[in-house]
Amino acid sequence: MSTRTLIRGGLVVTAADEIHADVLVEDGRVAALAAHGTPAAESWTADRVIDATGRYVIPGGVDAHTHMELPFGGTFASDTFETGTRAAAWGGTTTIVDFAVQTVGRPLREGLDAWYAKADGNCAVDYAFHMILSDVDASSLKEMDHLVEEGVTSFKLFMAYPGVFYSDDGQILRAMQRSSANGGLIMMHAENGIAIDVLVEQALARGETDPRHHGEVRKVLLEAEATHRAIQLARVAGAPLYVVHVSAEEAVAELAAARDKGLPVFGETCPQYLFLSTDNLAEPDFEGAKYVCSTPLRPREHQAALWRGLRTNDLQVVSTDHCPFCFTGQKDLGRGDFSKIPNGLPGVENRMDLLHQAVVDGHISRRRWIEIACATPARMFGLYPKKGTIAPGSDADIVVYDPHATQTLSAATHHMNVDYSAYEGRTVTGRVETVLSRGETVIENRTYTGRAGHGVYTPRSTCQYLD
Amino acid sequence: MSTRTLIRGGLVVTAADEIHADVLVEDGRVAALAAHGTPAAESWTADRVIDATGRYVIPGGVDAHTHMELPFGGTFASDTFETGTRAAAWGGTTTIVDFAVQTVGRPLREGLDAWYAKADGNCAVDYAFHMILSDVDASSLKEMDHLVEEGVTSFKLFMAYPGVFYSDDGQILRAMQRSSANGGLIMMHAENGIAIDVLVEQALARGETDPRHHGEVRKVLLEAEATHRAIQLARVAGAPLYVVHVSAEEAVAELAAARDKGLPVFGETCPQYLFLSTDNLAEPDFEGAKYVCSTPLRPREHQAALWRGLRTNDLQVVSTDHCPFCFTGQKDLGRGDFSKIPNGLPGVENRMDLLHQAVVDGHISRRRWIEIACATPARMFGLYPKKGTIAPGSDADIVVYDPHATQTLSAATHHMNVDYSAYEGRTVTGRVETVLSRGETVIENRTYTGRAGHGVYTPRSTCQYLD
Amino acid sequence: MSTRTLIRGGLVVTAADEIHADVLVEDGRVAALAAHGTPAAESWTADRVIDATGRYVIPGGVDAHTHMELPFGGTFASDTFETGTRAAAWGGTTTIVDFAVQTVGRPLREGLDAWYAKADGNCAVDYAFHMILSDVDASSLKEMDHLVEEGVTSFKLFMAYPGVFYSDDGQILRAMQRSSANGGLIMMHAENGIAIDVLVEQALARGETDPRHHGEVRKVLLEAEATHRAIQLARVAGAPLYVVHVSAEEAVAELAAARDKGLPVFGETCPQYLFLSTDNLAEPDFEGAKYVCSTPLRPREHQAALWRGLRTNDLQVVSTDHCPFCFTGQKDLGRGDFSKIPNGLPGVENRMDLLHQAVVDGHISRRRWIEIACATPARMFGLYPKKGTIAPGSDADIVVYDPHATQTLSAATHHMNVDYSAYEGRTVTGRVETVLSRGETVIENRTYTGRAGHGVYTPRSTCQYLD
Amino acid sequence: MSTRTLIRGGLVVTAADEIHADVLVEDGRVAALAAHGTPAAESWTADRVIDATGRYVIPGGVDAHTHMELPFGGTFASDTFETGTRAAAWGGTTTIVDFAVQTVGRPLREGLDAWYAKADGNCAVDYAFHMILSDVDASSLKEMDHLVEEGVTSFKLFMAYPGVFYSDDGQILRAMQRSSANGGLIMMHAENGIAIDVLVEQALARGETDPRHHGEVRKVLLEAEATHRAIQLARVAGAPLYVVHVSAEEAVAELAAARDKGLPVFGETCPQYLFLSTDNLAEPDFEGAKYVCSTPLRPREHQAALWRGLRTNDLQVVSTDHCPFCFTGQKDLGRGDFSKIPNGLPGVENRMDLLHQAVVDGHISRRRWIEIACATPARMFGLYPKKGTIAPGSDADIVVYDPHATQTLSAATHHMNVDYSAYEGRTVTGRVETVLSRGETVIENRTYTGRAGHGVYTPRSTCQYLD
Repeated sequence: MSTRTLIRGGLVVTAADEIHADVLVEDGRVAALAAHGTPAAESWTADRVIDATGRYVIPGGVDAHTHMELPFGGTFASDTFETGTRAAAWGGTTTIVDFAVQTVGRPLREGLDAWYAKADGNCAVDYAFHMILSDVDASSLKEMDHLVEEGVTSFKLFMAYPGVFYSDDGQILRAMQRSSANGGLIMMHAENGIAIDVLVEQALARGETDPRHHGEVRKVLLEAEATHRAIQLARVAGAPLYVVHVSAEEAVAELAAARDKGLPVFGETCPQYLFLSTDNLAEPDFEGAKYVCSTPLRPREHQAALWRGLRTNDLQVVSTDHCPFCFTGQKDLGRGDFSKIPNGLPGVENRMDLLHQAVVDGHISRRRWIEIACATPARMFGLYPKKGTIAPGSDADIVVYDPHATQTLSAATHHMNVDYSAYEGRTVTGRVETVLSRGETVIENRTYTGRAGHGVYTPRSTCQYLD
Repeated sequence: MSTRTLIRGGLVVTAADEIHADVLVEDGRVAALAAHGTPAAESWTADRVIDATGRYVIPGGVDAHTHMELPFGGTFASDTFETGTRAAAWGGTTTIVDFAVQTVGRPLREGLDAWYAKADGNCAVDYAFHMILSDVDASSLKEMDHLVEEGVTSFKLFMAYPGVFYSDDGQILRAMQRSSANGGLIMMHAENGIAIDVLVEQALARGETDPRHHGEVRKVLLEAEATHRAIQLARVAGAPLYVVHVSAEEAVAELAAARDKGLPVFGETCPQYLFLSTDNLAEPDFEGAKYVCSTPLRPREHQAALWRGLRTNDLQVVSTDHCPFCFTGQKDLGRGDFSKIPNGLPGVENRMDLLHQAVVDGHISRRRWIEIACATPARMFGLYPKKGTIAPGSDADIVVYDPHATQTLSAATHHMNVDYSAYEGRTVTGRVETVLSRGETVIENRTYTGRAGHGVYTPRSTCQYLD
Repeated sequence: MSTRTLIRGGLVVTAADEIHADVLVEDGRVAALAAHGTPAAESWTADRVIDATGRYVIPGGVDAHTHMELPFGGTFASDTFETGTRAAAWGGTTTIVDFAVQTVGRPLREGLDAWYAKADGNCAVDYAFHMILSDVDASSLKEMDHLVEEGVTSFKLFMAYPGVFYSDDGQILRAMQRSSANGGLIMMHAENGIAIDVLVEQALARGETDPRHHGEVRKVLLEAEATHRAIQLARVAGAPLYVVHVSAEEAVAELAAARDKGLPVFGETCPQYLFLSTDNLAEPDFEGAKYVCSTPLRPREHQAALWRGLRTNDLQVVSTDHCPFCFTGQKDLGRGDFSKIPNGLPGVENRMDLLHQAVVDGHISRRRWIEIACATPARMFGLYPKKGTIAPGSDADIVVYDPHATQTLSAATHHMNVDYSAYEGRTVTGRVETVLSRGETVIENRTYTGRAGHGVYTPRSTCQYLD
Repeated sequence: MSTRTLIRGGLVVTAADEIHADVLVEDGRVAALAAHGTPAAESWTADRVIDATGRYVIPGGVDAHTHMELPFGGTFASDTFETGTRAAAWGGTTTIVDFAVQTVGRPLREGLDAWYAKADGNCAVDYAFHMILSDVDASSLKEMDHLVEEGVTSFKLFMAYPGVFYSDDGQILRAMQRSSANGGLIMMHAENGIAIDVLVEQALARGETDPRHHGEVRKVLLEAEATHRAIQLARVAGAPLYVVHVSAEEAVAELAAARDKGLPVFGETCPQYLFLSTDNLAEPDFEGAKYVCSTPLRPREHQAALWRGLRTNDLQVVSTDHCPFCFTGQKDLGRGDFSKIPNGLPGVENRMDLLHQAVVDGHISRRRWIEIACATPARMFGLYPKKGTIAPGSDADIVVYDPHATQTLSAATHHMNVDYSAYEGRTVTGRVETVLSRGETVIENRTYTGRAGHGVYTPRSTCQYLD
């Protein structure tokens, strides 16, 4: 017979609603919600009752952009699937969508299988995969169809990093045409890397080698240009488009213009662009290297445009682009040459809390918090309503969230496998208290009760915004 | 003890979700939802079970723009609150927000009380009121505060109809400033009536007296102009703005531009603008008079812009502006002078079905249907989640909707008190089967089981998009 | 036989060209230009030779916006046609277009005749008239046709100053329709005066009576709104539009958007908006009153948008809106109530020099200087090529301009009949040396040699941009 | 002593003015202009008098985009400098700016010298050169500086034709940076050739081989995209930009948006885009091949946008892109494969007449005709006022133009060395009567009196719009 858990007395917050409701979990799924205090609710019994009085009851976060163990510039992102998903759980995120990587000249299959193997048996929470296309040709295009059928329904292309991940506009067009036919969604790293690499070379030649120059050469106009170009190519292909890690006001404007036309164009930003800026990149003693990622952090005034974009729905998703490299031993590969600093920041553990802080600060509403962090990424990548909401039939991925507790973010206390925090010393209001993944407690009253291998691979349907 | 109704086996469609769930109603409210077939669902018992297999279970419609018994041009809209709300119920609408009218020179109170009296004891479904400000002065501004407190939280102003409802830009600015302070929402009829009246006079002087000239003189540019002006005045006042019955592509563009800036500006359109056009206004033998309303019907190509606006959320609400006048005895007051044709169309009964047809036609998704017709109007006017959704705690205003049945719209079969249908002979897919209002059946398997007086006045909180 | 003057050795600068040419004047008109040093040039003899070596030879300025002796707020602008046109000559301006004023309820004819009488026999340089329409009705509309035929081809309307000059949108539309038919050009004071007057009243009620509040209540958004509205009304009427004294960046944006569509919409700004700002309005001890005009001075950052508009040709003309009131005895009517300060600034003598300074500062090119100050106003108001250029056949209205001399602007040295300078103490590079009006010297080596009555009334053709 | 020619009695039309003036030519240059009938004019004597009564006297045309003898796709453009410049003279064009071509891997110098040699001693009218950069590297960047000093001040880059002329975005950025420093002007062929080549391959694979498919694969969005990208790269480089042969409405919109920002961005279109369309490309029996050029002809509705762009000055220049290939023997290389059709149309002889027809048709004014065809190309490419106008000191490159004569364009009567006319059978109003090049008659009353070798190489200063 079934195992029942009852979460009683909380404020259930989803993207759509805020209701005082009790949540009944049966066999790992949400069986029912009842208005608190009604006869219907009162009649429920359960094996286990969680008292959520004074707490929010929210869907587990869906982080649609992580890079566990990513090889980059001769090193690897420092979180494994084990450490990374455990940290995710600590931060209230119960699903990650990571990026499998195609090696140039090799089949997608090979890359995908490698990522399956890395994750298998190691994850604390559920996971799925996007596929990075490093080498668009007739063979990899054909493989896309198979991957879509198998639940890998989104494909990332890069307009930057020539010689590594870069696709030219012809390859991009072909991949978009294919995705238009097979239902896949193209995710784009939109920076004009060909032009940027000229500026990088010129900056280094001028002796501008510090981390802050990373931000200066990767110009706002070149992010906006690539965003515009990707949109036009998608229009030619008749395909939808999802632009990852949007950081510049001018890029948001390109998305807004496209969306005003009714085009199926979507944009993601990340906590680092919302909370950090070029001021951080300019921190002395090479500390700026901690904040090197691409697209880069922007001057502080771009933050307002990003928040506005999140409110106007010109940006729909906040993911982390979690890709941690230790300051010591990894980031310092780029001392004396910013272009050699591994690109990426840790964040998978901090996203839900930072965005709740944005609720406290008045940038977004509570429901919008859940929408951009849970519901929309789930819909975008074919996981809804299994993931991303609390509704009858959903997976019981549920966070009991204390909106009043405060905490100070720090490498000393976080659970990510990286020697610094990008938000070191920042105090935020709100904290994860208890986390259920498919009905099992992974975090219980701020104790980790999960295990590697609980998390399972979750195949995805195609993007749910394209009906 | 409580009365329980169980709606079993349907697809519950809300603005947020589509779930196979059973809905338990206790004492007029939704007590709980449970995933169909789960132990939780199976364990429920009820006094009454409605089998919704193969049906949609949707929130009752919220029509935020009706004019029952409106005095206009020497006559009265032909639906009383009794006939109009009964027709609403037949059409799956369980809440209307009607407009109380201030008489020039008289207090708001007087107008509001008159409307309370008209509706009291007569309504088949629940109702609320907006207030039309015909005379903005120090006294009426002060009264606004009281009305907001009492649950009349939205106020309509007119940039057209000088000498009747017209407010000048100074009056508009003052009313907006006041609403900015008291939480009220200004609803705007945005047409430059001063300029239009010049064109009306000139057209009549040229002998252009047919109904189609009504559409020609009320120019698209003068709707767009007024929309822009209202937005700018709202910016000066720091107030939100809701533009009623948007019909022109260029007006949608003004709204989109404002919303891209993050301004709290909202737009409503109506079924007549989505499904009818100047072709109807040009129907011979004065038949065009049936379609005379303001803003007027537009050339067919504007429809695409309105549908796009509904998809991009530059338009948020579809209301009816239900304001019926019989062709014989009312519309014909304007034979020989289009400016004397009473302005308005019947529609309260047709809205939910026409918008479902739009789902069938691929203009909008099922969830968006419920959003624009139920959830958003409820949120916009402070009725959510009591109205506009099916969630634990909501009023049990529920429609069991047959998505496969077809019906042919006609004055011969409709229940509105008017001698013609604006959609005569149009066959649509989808039909209301059963309607609950606060748990009581009003329509049961297409039989009217309701009664005048079941519907109650429902005070409203302020607009829920302004947190 | 003819009288010949030869201007030799200068750099002739027109809107089109910069050429080293000798200019031959016969009988008050430019007879010929010859390349300096050619046999053709060398062969010329003349009664009088002006050596322009090292100087610019430029067309006399055309100031298309002056208000000599304007009645305003119970007083009169302090320059008469005699003093004002003499000052104009000192400043290198050889043509003014002043505004005749219709009194409400009286014929245009009466107002125009009054202005003819004020100017007749008093002017040092040539002059023409626009007509202010204070009372648009059937009678004044009919009179417009006659005025166009008689050479008064432009008509100013006000969207501000209700009860004085204000026209409502219906009157504006009718006047535009009429001008569309008779070739006249509507000039618009574009500010939403109805809304502004509410803000004025509220500011005064709050005790905000200082001159700087004049700038605060006349909001940028209300200038932009009126500009947009005027454009839309002009589109409905199928008429061209000239917006006077544009001061706000947002208003320039409206003009630019209209012009991108190819609409015949034109914009004028004034030196005060280019060189002064709200900083001046905030000068202590009521000194800010010196800078009170409408549209008001704007925050400094608007200047860049105006300069850009002049470069991109979204603004075409710089006029002065010369309307001086003495600080003592006139401006001080508004002590304790900024709304009672007579609106207007002196400037007719300073325009050419200030704009030359803009050349020195790099804002505009030399040719653009002549274009916005001479050629375009002449074309706009039907005076070209008689006025506004130096070409065979043109009136010999010529300024020999020393581009290297410096001067300090000051009430102590200017020739306008007003007790202050808006540019007191500002040193500029460039100075008028000699001025010819129809071949006669008015200023000769910085001595006034002209006379009241030399200047003649100059009827105008219709706008030359509408072919 | 000097030789004098007097052109008497005509209407001198320049970009700036239309004046009844006599023009005195001394020693190949314009010495003076005098108002017709004045003593100054009457006193002139000359060796030769041309009676221009009833005629326009206009500057010789400046065609800034020709490709004489261009190697393309294994063949050569069919006009030599001798035949091409003679045809130019017949058509009233007295200056061409042709494109010298760098061979990949070879110095600019070599290419330029080859073009000097081709033209030397062969031209009927004056000529200058732009340089095509096929291979941007450190060496060619350095050579750019030398070329600017020597009078080759503009450099064309291609975003299309990978493997032939194509530069990637890094090369473009470097060339722009260099031109920003040395005063050169980058001219851009703005089409996303990488994406287009994918579409070409796919079309051919589908058996779509007819000429009309050339127009279908080279999509409007891919011209607009490249235009936007070029503008952004120019912004990053701080360089001006001139976009050649703009054909699509959406590309004009990109230029307009850039120009509204005040950016130094310029656009050229060509007669074929103004007068021809995809209807021509679809002509049967491979006749469409006559109209194959890139950017391609567009659907007819784009023409209105181009005319509007010319009126709003969002487009500044009309050149021909003259690049003729005979239908027999050249164009037919592409039978069965549109991608093998040599790209280009004849036009150098037709431009002035077609644009005069546009004056007759009301698209542009007379002065704008001269501006876009003579004055602006001269200024843009550093030839003004030597070329492009009739002013004292200018080269006496003058056309006596009969505005009333009609002619029918035809390969049977034209003088270009190509076996078809793109405008075969089209009757236009207006015809060149007599042409002077530096004072010498090249065409005299429609008889060719010129000679190969009269035309001289004319070094150019830098762009005159960048002061």
